[in-house]
Amino acid sequence: MFAFDDYIDSRRDRFIADLKDFVRQPSVAATGHGMAQMAALVRARLQALGARVQTVETGGAPILFAELGHGPRTLLIYNHYDVQPPDPIDLWTTPPFEPEVRDGKLYARGVSDNKGDLLGRIQAIEAWQNAIGELPLKIKWVIEGEEEIGSPHLAEFARAHAAELQADGCLWETGGKNEDDLFSLTLGLKGIQYVELRVRGNRRDLHSGYAAIAPSPVWRLIWALNTLKDEHDNITIDQYLDHVRAPSEAELAMLRAMPLDEAKKKAALGIDRFINDEHGLDVLTRFYYGPTVTICGLQAGYTGEGVKTVLPAYAFAKIDFRLVPDLTPELCVKLLRAHLDRRGFTDVEIVPLSSEQPARSAVDAPLVAACQAAAREVYGHEPVMIPLSPGSGPMYPLTTALHIPTVMAGVTYSGSRAHAPDENIRLDDYFEGLRFIGRLIMHFAEA
Amino acid sequence: MFAFDDYIDSRRDRFIADLKDFVRQPSVAATGHGMAQMAALVRARLQALGARVQTVETGGAPILFAELGHGPRTLLIYNHYDVQPPDPIDLWTTPPFEPEVRDGKLYARGVSDNKGDLLGRIQAIEAWQNAIGELPLKIKWVIEGEEEIGSPHLAEFARAHAAELQADGCLWETGGKNEDDLFSLTLGLKGIQYVELRVRGNRRDLHSGYAAIAPSPVWRLIWALNTLKDEHDNITIDQYLDHVRAPSEAELAMLRAMPLDEAKKKAALGIDRFINDEHGLDVLTRFYYGPTVTICGLQAGYTGEGVKTVLPAYAFAKIDFRLVPDLTPELCVKLLRAHLDRRGFTDVEIVPLSSEQPARSAVDAPLVAACQAAAREVYGHEPVMIPLSPGSGPMYPLTTALHIPTVMAGVTYSGSRAHAPDENIRLDDYFEGLRFIGRLIMHFAEA
Repeated sequence: MFAFDDYIDSRRDRFIADLKDFVRQPSVAATGHGMAQMAALVRARLQALGARVQTVETGGAPILFAELGHGPRTLLIYNHYDVQPPDPIDLWTTPPFEPEVRDGKLYARGVSDNKGDLLGRIQAIEAWQNAIGELPLKIKWVIEGEEEIGSPHLAEFARAHAAELQADGCLWETGGKNEDDLFSLTLGLKGIQYVELRVRGNRRDLHSGYAAIAPSPVWRLIWALNTLKDEHDNITIDQYLDHVRAPSEAELAMLRAMPLDEAKKKAALGIDRFINDEHGLDVLTRFYYGPTVTICGLQAGYTGEGVKTVLPAYAFAKIDFRLVPDLTPELCVKLLRAHLDRRGFTDVEIVPLSSEQPARSAVDAPLVAACQAAAREVYGHEPVMIPLSPGSGPMYPLTTALHIPTVMAGVTYSGSRAHAPDENIRLDDYFEGLRFIGRLIMHFAEA
Repeated sequence: MFAFDDYIDSRRDRFIADLKDFVRQPSVAATGHGMAQMAALVRARLQALGARVQTVETGGAPILFAELGHGPRTLLIYNHYDVQPPDPIDLWTTPPFEPEVRDGKLYARGVSDNKGDLLGRIQAIEAWQNAIGELPLKIKWVIEGEEEIGSPHLAEFARAHAAELQADGCLWETGGKNEDDLFSLTLGLKGIQYVELRVRGNRRDLHSGYAAIAPSPVWRLIWALNTLKDEHDNITIDQYLDHVRAPSEAELAMLRAMPLDEAKKKAALGIDRFINDEHGLDVLTRFYYGPTVTICGLQAGYTGEGVKTVLPAYAFAKIDFRLVPDLTPELCVKLLRAHLDRRGFTDVEIVPLSSEQPARSAVDAPLVAACQAAAREVYGHEPVMIPLSPGSGPMYPLTTALHIPTVMAGVTYSGSRAHAPDENIRLDDYFEGLRFIGRLIMHFAEA
C-alpha cells in the first residue's frame, strides 16, 4: 500500500481543496437550498472514477446509484449529499458554507455529517485506481439527498431495487473516533418509535374543587405511564421483552472487551449514577442491547409561576421507544395498545409520530473482519467494537432487510459537532480515513 | 317584619344608588388601587349605623373592626372591601367600575364578590333600626381589605383579638343560590395545600439514546406521583385518611336531603361520568367530605410540535391538596414527605406554595337554625344545606379556630361570574338578601 499512501500524501492540498468545494456547496434537504447543484457535483465526481451513475427520481431529492469496479466481492456503500440547516448562523465562528481551516480542523456545515466521508471514499478510490490499478471488487454506491429529513424515500427505493443492491457487506455513511480518541466500528443501530400519549377528560378545565368527583385526565396519564416501566427501569409492557433478541456469545465477548471508565462516563453525562447503580458489563449491556422507554416531554394544565388551582382537561406525554432487534415499530405500537387496553386505559390515545427499524449486523461477517484489519493497520490499535448504536437511523431497509452485513466507520471525532454550529473534522483524521478505505478495499476483496 | 320590608321597598332606588357608589369605587388589593378611599367609604357607612369602628393596621390594607347593638347574643360578620383586578378589561360589556343595570342585573367588578353582601347587610341593619328600633343582638363586624390576595394578615389579627371576637355565630362574606336557583347555606370550607413536586436528575438534557443507562427525573416523578393515588382515586399517602373526620349522622342526613340531578351536573361540568362511575350519596359524600389530590400542572422536557428525542434534566408537578377536617396543611406536607421518603423518593423535592386550613361548623348550632328559619320565610323553601364548600378560603382562623359556628349566605347566583368579566348580581336577589338579613337578626336574637 506504499504507492496508495504516497499518492494521498502528495495530493494533500488538492484533496483539501476538493473537500472545501464539497462543503462550500449548500445542500439543505429541509429547504431544498442547493440540492440540485450538490447532486450534480457528486455525480460528476463519481463519473470521473468511471462509475455508471443512475439518478433515481423519488418524488423528493433524487437518489444517486453508482456502480464501479469488478471482482468476486461486492461492497455496498451508503452516503447522503444533504446536510442539516446551518441555523443558528450567529453561533458559527465563520460562515457555515465558507469552509475554513483553523488548528488543523476544517470547519463547515456538513463536513462531519457526512461530506467528509463521502468525498474521502471518492478520493480513496481515485488513489487506488491511480496508484495501484483496477478496483479488485465491485462497488455499489447509494447516495441519497434526504437523510436529514428522515429518509422518506429510502425504504421504497431499497424495496424496488432489492436485487440490484445485493452485496456482501455495506459500509455505512459515517463514524469515527470516540471520546477516548479510539477508532470505533459500529455494527448496527437501535430503532425508534416516537409516539404521543394523549388523554382528554372533562371537556374544559375545571375549578379544582371538582376534583373530588370529576375524573382527571392527568391522573389517567400518570397511571397509564406507570404501567409501562417499573421503579427499577424494567419495561413492563406485556410481552414486550419476549421480542428482544439476546446478544450472542460473540456479541457479549465484544462487550467484555469494551473499555468503560465509569467515572469519566458519568461526568460526561452529568449524572451521579447509572440506572439501578449498575456497573461494568451490566451498564454496557443495557446501553447497547437494552430497549428504552423515555418520556421526552410531558405536559398538562398550568405550568407557570405560583398557584393556579385547576383540574386540566387534557394531558399528554411524548415518548421515545428505542428498539433493539427484533422489536419493530409496528410491534411496539401494537403491544402498547393491547397492554393499555387490557388495563382499561382505552381512553389513552396513541399517536405515532415517527419510527425507524432497528438494524443489527452479524459480528462474524467478512466485512467486519476486513474493517478490523484495516483499522489495526491505520490506527495502530484494535478498533472499539460497538454492537448497536444507541441512536437511530435509516439503516434497516437498505441493509438488514436485505441481509447485508453493515459497518459504520468514518472520519469524525467526539468534537465534530454534527448538526451544531462550528461543525468540523480534524484533517489528520480525514487522511487516516482515506488510508482506512484503501486497506478496507484490499482486505475485503481478499477475504 | 312588615315595617322592615316596607322600609326596604320604599327605598329601593336609593339602595341601588348606594350600591352603585360602592362598586364605582375601585379597591383592587393586588395593586392597591382605591383601597384607602374604599376603606373610608365603608367606615363612614358603618359609623352612620352608630357603630364604633376601629381601623386595625396590619402592615397591608387595614382591617375595619366595627361593633354595634346590644343583646344576649353576639353575631360576628366577616366581609372584605377589596376586589379582584378587573382584567381582562376588553371582555367586559361595560367598564368594570362603571356600574350598569341591564335586564334586572347590576354589572360591576366586586358586586358579587362581595360588595353586594357587604352593603346589603349595612342597609338591612339601617332598615331594622329605622323600621323596628334598636338591634336585639350585638354585632361584631370584621371587614378586611386583603381577601383577594390570600388574607395574609387575617390569621394574625384573629389570634391577637381572639377575646374581642368571641361570638355565638359568624355570618360569612357571601353565598347565594345554586345552579337550580335554590338558596343555599354553606357551613364550612375545604382547606388547601398547594405544592410543587420537583425532580432534578442529570445536570442537563441528554440525547435520549442515553436513557438506557442514565436515570430519568421524569420517570422518578411519575413513579412518585403514582404512589399518591390509586386507579380508583383513593388517596394512598400513608396515614393520610386516618386524619379525615367522618361526617356525623346529622351531616349525612344533610347529604341525603340534598337534591342531585346527576345528568345535569355532569353536563354542567362537561364530564361523562363521576369518579368510579359513582352515583347519588357516594358522589355527594366525595364532593363535600372527600379530600383531593389534583395535579393542576405537569411539565418536563420538550412539549412542542412533532418529535424531539431528549432525556429531560428536570420535571415538576403542581399539586393541589383540598383538605377536610382534620387534615391541616402542615400535616399534609409532613405525611407527604414521610410517604415519599419511605419509598426512596428522597430526590423528590416538595415546595409548598400556599395553604389554607379547612373549616367546619356544627350542623346543630343556633345560627344554622336561625339562617334556615330566615331562608324558609324569604325564599319559600328549605335552604340547600352544603356542609363544606369544595373551594377554600380564609374562614378557619377567624371562626373554627375560635370555635364560632359559621354560615355562608349571600346574594349571588350561579351566573354571577365572580373574578371574571361581566361580574353581576340580580337586583331581585339583592333585595331578597336584605329581607333575609332582617329575619336572621330576628331569629338569631330569639334563638
